[in-house]
Amino acid sequence: MDSRHAANSAELLKVAERVADAAGNAILPHFRAHGLVIEDKDDDGLFDPVTVADREAEAAMRAVLAEHRPQDGILGEEEGHSEGTSGLTWVLDPVDGTRGFVAGTPNWGVLVALADADGPFLGIVDQPYIGERFIGGPNMAEFRRGTFRRQLQTRKTARLSDSIIFTTFPEVGDSHEQRAFHELAPQTRLVRYGMDCYAYALLADGQIDLVVEAGLHPYDIQAPIAVIEAAGGIVTDWDGGPAHEGGRALAAANAAVHAAALEVLAGTGSG
Amino acid sequence: MDSRHAANSAELLKVAERVADAAGNAILPHFRAHGLVIEDKDDDGLFDPVTVADREAEAAMRAVLAEHRPQDGILGEEEGHSEGTSGLTWVLDPVDGTRGFVAGTPNWGVLVALADADGPFLGIVDQPYIGERFIGGPNMAEFRRGTFRRQLQTRKTARLSDSIIFTTFPEVGDSHEQRAFHELAPQTRLVRYGMDCYAYALLADGQIDLVVEAGLHPYDIQAPIAVIEAAGGIVTDWDGGPAHEGGRALAAANAAVHAAALEVLAGTGSG
Repeated sequence: MDSRHAANSAELLKVAERVADAAGNAILPHFRAHGLVIEDKDDDGLFDPVTVADREAEAAMRAVLAEHRPQDGILGEEEGHSEGTSGLTWVLDPVDGTRGFVAGTPNWGVLVALADADGPFLGIVDQPYIGERFIGGPNMAEFRRGTFRRQLQTRKTARLSDSIIFTTFPEVGDSHEQRAFHELAPQTRLVRYGMDCYAYALLADGQIDLVVEAGLHPYDIQAPIAVIEAAGGIVTDWDGGPAHEGGRALAAANAAVHAAALEVLAGTGSG
Repeated sequence: MDSRHAANSAELLKVAERVADAAGNAILPHFRAHGLVIEDKDDDGLFDPVTVADREAEAAMRAVLAEHRPQDGILGEEEGHSEGTSGLTWVLDPVDGTRGFVAGTPNWGVLVALADADGPFLGIVDQPYIGERFIGGPNMAEFRRGTFRRQLQTRKTARLSDSIIFTTFPEVGDSHEQRAFHELAPQTRLVRYGMDCYAYALLADGQIDLVVEAGLHPYDIQAPIAVIEAAGGIVTDWDGGPAHEGGRALAAANAAVHAAALEVLAGTGSG
């Protein structure tokens, strides 16, 4: 568990929760609403919908930070990067899993992370429709739903053959990355697709063992890193290096299963 | 909307809801519980976990029916078929989407259907963890969550290129069926995987347009058929015939998108 910023972590967590609350309140009126406006901001043929929900939520999140933490920087999916003076940066993804969102699934999430020069040390993966909040920070790793609380703790699964793996593949990643994943997947017990950030939350909560992804942005992965590391897991890129700048990510419940998965990914030449 | 059995549909729905309630109460203590017992009842290498939750839930469902509808037959995933004298059969799947369940995702469901000789005419797709209930029957099609109610109504999407398609592929289906699906999927706007019965509920609720599956059992598809048909959609096999005996299913939001998808599936020789 990360002890950086432990001294003022209670105050920072309070702000992070307000940011997540503001996002949820902005998003929920649009979830499953008929006639949702979907634009396509990509011109490469990929379906990348930007909804009204996304933009309204990020504006609401930034308004909370402008009030409570004007000294911090912000990196958000919709509005990009704004510099701060504190050395801390809030990394925001208002709706992670937009495709799932527009299809009405409840597996998207609001991602809030707080990073210093070494990467994220506080994170929230929030699912406001279900009412679930997965929190990881200095000296805490907690699942909350309403008044219910549970300690987040990753699993002890040591072998690939006993592990459950998630990815957003086969939709994401180049052909080389897909080959690497399809080398790894058959060695596991169960493969599931299409959960976006929700898969990282399940890993932190000890439900699954591995998440493998590629093509990530920093705002996709920083909150999951903070939550998973606080719960005892490990997140790296496919070379075993830091993953918080985005790209390829390998999230694992523990060091043993992380090493086993890393060996397979490296063996394909994609590591 | 189906008008068979409209006269006593209120009484039948009340029983169906009690059956779904009993299942949810039996299942929820096991959901995300660490140390869940997972057996493998298949010997073909496929991962088909049977949990304690499955068996306890079906026993609880059968107990409700023994009390309130002893004259009806029952077809359940776990305990098989028992004959009745009324001409009606309850078709039960306590946990549809067991793989998602064991991975901690909230996209599994309790399926309750009531069928006569022509197939299902009343159905519930229930997600007790989220607290969602999708109901279709004579003269009703309704979404409920807590005190919230909404009419279920499928979408008007006419063209494949505007449609959102779900399947449990690439995990399910033989190679011929997979080819057929991979002919159809690129013609749609968005493909998502791994939702099991939850995808049918989203179709009934007007969130998505198509669900294509193969290798189904009757208890996987009868409740979805009743809910989707009550909401204005269509469910057939890949030849356009009845789907309630299981096998291949094509669920569509309306006749136009159903016809367009059927044409592609038939063109591959799999229809």
